[in-house]
Amino acid sequence: MFIDSLIDAIKVKRSPIVVGLDPRLDLIPEGIREKHFREKGQNLKAVREIIVEFNKGIIDSTHDIVPAVKPQIAFYEQYGIEGMEAYMETCQYAREKGLLIIGDVKRGDIGSTSKAYSNAHLGRVEVGEELIETFSVDSITINPYLGDDCIEEFVKDVIKYNKGVFILVKTSNPGSGQLQDLIVEGRSIYEAVALIVDKWSKRCIGKSGYSSIGAVVGANYPQQGMKLRELMPKSYILVPGYGAQGGTAQDVIHSFNNDGLGAIVNSSRAILYAYRNNEDCSYGDAAREETIKMRDGINEALYKSNKIYW
Amino acid sequence: MFIDSLIDAIKVKRSPIVVGLDPRLDLIPEGIREKHFREKGQNLKAVREIIVEFNKGIIDSTHDIVPAVKPQIAFYEQYGIEGMEAYMETCQYAREKGLLIIGDVKRGDIGSTSKAYSNAHLGRVEVGEELIETFSVDSITINPYLGDDCIEEFVKDVIKYNKGVFILVKTSNPGSGQLQDLIVEGRSIYEAVALIVDKWSKRCIGKSGYSSIGAVVGANYPQQGMKLRELMPKSYILVPGYGAQGGTAQDVIHSFNNDGLGAIVNSSRAILYAYRNNEDCSYGDAAREETIKMRDGINEALYKSNKIYW
Repeated sequence: MFIDSLIDAIKVKRSPIVVGLDPRLDLIPEGIREKHFREKGQNLKAVREIIVEFNKGIIDSTHDIVPAVKPQIAFYEQYGIEGMEAYMETCQYAREKGLLIIGDVKRGDIGSTSKAYSNAHLGRVEVGEELIETFSVDSITINPYLGDDCIEEFVKDVIKYNKGVFILVKTSNPGSGQLQDLIVEGRSIYEAVALIVDKWSKRCIGKSGYSSIGAVVGANYPQQGMKLRELMPKSYILVPGYGAQGGTAQDVIHSFNNDGLGAIVNSSRAILYAYRNNEDCSYGDAAREETIKMRDGINEALYKSNKIYW
Repeated sequence: MFIDSLIDAIKVKRSPIVVGLDPRLDLIPEGIREKHFREKGQNLKAVREIIVEFNKGIIDSTHDIVPAVKPQIAFYEQYGIEGMEAYMETCQYAREKGLLIIGDVKRGDIGSTSKAYSNAHLGRVEVGEELIETFSVDSITINPYLGDDCIEEFVKDVIKYNKGVFILVKTSNPGSGQLQDLIVEGRSIYEAVALIVDKWSKRCIGKSGYSSIGAVVGANYPQQGMKLRELMPKSYILVPGYGAQGGTAQDVIHSFNNDGLGAIVNSSRAILYAYRNNEDCSYGDAAREETIKMRDGINEALYKSNKIYW
């Protein structure tokens, strides 16, 4: 099961963190940009090469110290076909390096359409008598606004193909409260969604006792994180918003259970572009250094809270 | 402005309807499938050709009687790179035939990520000194669960590039009520979202008096449709759920204003695959017949309600 593989990797690497692969052209080292622009011109073909080279460098520098990477598909999709090719190549390379992949795709639609998205990102698609994988990764994020019949289509493939999903509960952006914090009969919308996640989570419990149906809860809402941890005891929580978005080790600690498990913390910009604040080393070395700092910070905070998973 | 172009086309063609281009391989005429499978094998390259040929046939048969088409991107995305190429080719062909395109992508994420999605589907993406269009169409659907800072990134491009968005308010699926119908201080979540749509709509009013910021409200909820029509007077309502999903002309009439404008009704399966219940004609002719039937049914219902737009 996905969740057992994730937990195994977290324990072996002593690292409950994930590197977000969000390529931003203007922040990628100039040397990489210039090389491919010179070779191919200022076009999407060059962008594809730039993204893949950059991501491979990040993966090479961090694959032994993190269990998973999380490419945010929007940063690839914006570059069209070539961007989607870069997404696939990045996932392929990460897989070869033994990493689990969380595709941050935030898809969700009515049932039959969600089935198509699930074919794309978790399962396989039927072509004549063939079953073909296209953008499939180990797990993805999904949006709950359309309700259970949307979620169910993804859960079916989670079960069928040993995959995982993380359902958006409380997102890390400043405006997340506008809908998510509205109170219904004494309970917020994000809590209502957490109960939906908890219900689905029971369908996919692994040997670890945790479920392959997880949740997204932003680091910048530690109080809510604590409450949500209780409402979804079996779900792994994917925690964005660490680092560049303001979350600290102390903020994310509440998303972990007392066994030191139950959460995986993402950082994207702060790791990928660490070299910009560290002129003494390559972007890969700077990313590695930042990743180790983040890992050790979180492990130390877990240790101080007696939440020891290793 | 997008909304003025849409209304002009609706008036000229006397047709407030949109054809949903949702290619389902198993429902596409066997002749088209067999031809390309034979030529290319049972693979994604063949699928690309099958989808494009089928869609071109539908567009050829309906482009003079509808103002717009709505490709549902999930049905392309599931076929990987080749599927996305088919999406682009379909959009390109529809554009050449004078149709407006509503990309049913239901994207939405935190601000900086929504910006990337907006680059992909509405705006342009920066590559060195170049600004390049990738999957850009005239308008798209977006998901409101992340709140205003997500919506804002799309609205910026609506203004900058004369585009449109339709924000999910009340979706057409059976499970839509699970979150969308929850009551907050005497008001449902979908009404709360409608008020958000109304607020944004005022930023993008065209000469027609309508806004390029619209909403999605399913046909199968006529009572809610009536209420939502009042809450968002300036917004065009994109109405899915007609035909195969059960909505009738009488159900959708409430989504129109008294001027006979304010809504555009989508049908996908019932039009695309009409040939399966009509063995006497080609799939294109069957689609045309079904489209005319739908158009005339809605126009008649509008006429009887004194909602005359032509």
